[in-house]
Amino acid sequence: MNEFTAPRIAERMRHIAAFEVMEIQTLARALEAQGRDVIHLEIGEPDFRTPAPVIEAAKRALDERPQSYTRAIGYHPLREAIAHFYQERYGVTVPVERIAVTAGSSAALLLAFGVLLDAGDEVLLADPGYPCNRHFMRALGGIPRSIPVGPDTRFQLTEPAARANWTDRTRAVMVATPSNPTGTLLSPPEVEALAKLAREKGGTLLVDEIYHGLTYGLEARTALEAGDDLFVVNSFSKYFQMTGWRLGWMVVPQAYAREVEKLAQNLFISPSTVAQYAALACFAPETIAILEARRAKLDQRRRYLVPALEKLGLRVPVVPEGAFYVWADCSALTGDSFAFAREVLQRAGVAITPGRDFGAHQPERYIRIAYTQPIERLMEAVARIGALAP
Amino acid sequence: MNEFTAPRIAERMRHIAAFEVMEIQTLARALEAQGRDVIHLEIGEPDFRTPAPVIEAAKRALDERPQSYTRAIGYHPLREAIAHFYQERYGVTVPVERIAVTAGSSAALLLAFGVLLDAGDEVLLADPGYPCNRHFMRALGGIPRSIPVGPDTRFQLTEPAARANWTDRTRAVMVATPSNPTGTLLSPPEVEALAKLAREKGGTLLVDEIYHGLTYGLEARTALEAGDDLFVVNSFSKYFQMTGWRLGWMVVPQAYAREVEKLAQNLFISPSTVAQYAALACFAPETIAILEARRAKLDQRRRYLVPALEKLGLRVPVVPEGAFYVWADCSALTGDSFAFAREVLQRAGVAITPGRDFGAHQPERYIRIAYTQPIERLMEAVARIGALAP
Repeated sequence: MNEFTAPRIAERMRHIAAFEVMEIQTLARALEAQGRDVIHLEIGEPDFRTPAPVIEAAKRALDERPQSYTRAIGYHPLREAIAHFYQERYGVTVPVERIAVTAGSSAALLLAFGVLLDAGDEVLLADPGYPCNRHFMRALGGIPRSIPVGPDTRFQLTEPAARANWTDRTRAVMVATPSNPTGTLLSPPEVEALAKLAREKGGTLLVDEIYHGLTYGLEARTALEAGDDLFVVNSFSKYFQMTGWRLGWMVVPQAYAREVEKLAQNLFISPSTVAQYAALACFAPETIAILEARRAKLDQRRRYLVPALEKLGLRVPVVPEGAFYVWADCSALTGDSFAFAREVLQRAGVAITPGRDFGAHQPERYIRIAYTQPIERLMEAVARIGALAP
Repeated sequence: MNEFTAPRIAERMRHIAAFEVMEIQTLARALEAQGRDVIHLEIGEPDFRTPAPVIEAAKRALDERPQSYTRAIGYHPLREAIAHFYQERYGVTVPVERIAVTAGSSAALLLAFGVLLDAGDEVLLADPGYPCNRHFMRALGGIPRSIPVGPDTRFQLTEPAARANWTDRTRAVMVATPSNPTGTLLSPPEVEALAKLAREKGGTLLVDEIYHGLTYGLEARTALEAGDDLFVVNSFSKYFQMTGWRLGWMVVPQAYAREVEKLAQNLFISPSTVAQYAALACFAPETIAILEARRAKLDQRRRYLVPALEKLGLRVPVVPEGAFYVWADCSALTGDSFAFAREVLQRAGVAITPGRDFGAHQPERYIRIAYTQPIERLMEAVARIGALAP
């Protein structure tokens, strides 16, 4: 860099924030470097390793097959396996032509917004919500319109709020079920109402189902039941526990399939080949058995954690039924969730994510706690937080 | 899709074309389905498998390490290994803070343009050139300004042409050395002149070095010699033969490093973990020995192919010194390279890429031939094309 010239950084970067939790993690590492034990409840990643049958499939593929590019929208047998999974698990028929395998759900979202959004187009989405969603839109010149949501709608953007906020600039509405950070779901009629609204307005509904499979005590349903004119994004990261492999998929309306493929060819070339060969083993009965046992463990943690947090004064306004997060109201203990997160880390050695990472609607009031640690560690975390004098 | 509603597809998609070569490939598959033997010289992917030490490193990592997310800009030891590689191979010191590991060079380009380009900003680049470059810019609202280049500058965009085309809207100039599709290089003084121009204009130079390592009879030099204020994109795909792993890297000016990391966190989360562990083995002496033997093979193919094509009437105006492509002038044989590519495929069973995939400057005059097949197959292809009656 010429020392006399300031760097010219694109305008969009003013809208793209680093994750606040990174500061928490930096602090956590500093404490660990001092020999402190830190319990990590800030991480949005399962603590389980990728299931052994998936690892073995990857190793076989590495021995036997060239690791060359696949088709941009994915290896055909994997796309077929995904279609079959929808049939088997959800009873929904999805033509394989509508399935695009992607480099994580991140790539899926970039492709979806890439084919949907012109500069200035707005997308309605819930606040709190997964922060990257806003940033994908910004990267492409779209405008995220965050709608404050609260316990009354289980922190979900529902049809009445979407309708009330729909304008001429609105191009799409995006929801997540289960949601990060709240772990709550939309009911099938709620999804249907949003799909109808989008149809009525000539817009598009996009549903994030990346925590699908990680639901507790509920029948599995997919938004694809609500029509074939919506985008559904899913992932091998969470339920299938393949985070670092960077593999996801998207179901797109037929009319957009060709456009998504063109954009994928240009922006990504293709998803990881070894990850795709490995993912074929995700749907094998022995893998599903492992995943279901882990899901039961997550449920056990959840059932322990929610009442335990309540006893600490960390109120859980809506009991989460999915993902691996609790969205807890810390307003009885503090007026500033970010300061609280730092304090809990510094004094109790427990890392949690402050609300600010998920939006601008009462972020000071909430924290996100990920139960991505064994139950003994959760108990230890609760005991440590409980021992903090108020 | 509601049958009465046409899909609303984003404007940018009008600028984003599918690859013409896909049509050639579809036709090739149809011929193969009929039992015809097709020699694939259209594919921009080495025919060599990922080197065994890299495969073995991946398998060890799968056995021993959790496949969780890494830092968004990559696993630190891999970033260090890349820095060390610059020191060792090029004698250039690159601080590790300036190195971002990415999901292929595709992700690197999206990040680079993402932090550089505002809507309407223009980027100068050579025509012919790698088509995705234009599409990354379009995806982000930038405007590619393709500058026709010819044999007089070895199909490279050099300083005089960049200067002549620089306007108030110009934000950056991008070059590729070695270039796809032409296989030609910029000399170090030419790179330096472009870096100076960008500096003088308050713009940025971006250099695609993804075919680095695949040069023949030349000393290895990197554009990083020309300053620390330019972006250099590289890849594990070509020289290291890891295409399907989707792993690349970028060296960014210090002042942009934090912005690139923020954007990477949001758009990609992290690059493939197994690919990163595997790539650590790329720099081991036994891997380099394999790669150098393969480079010698590519050179042998190149030295066979260029004069053989000339004898067929496919003139090679600039002998390629890098990558694995020959950019051949077919105007002595045809007025339409696309029709010619189809004819050569249909009649001779040889798949080549028509010029149209690489730009709008005399595409009818050129074809790209990839020597990503064993030399015996190249000989067979030349014999078959030679047997076509003119």
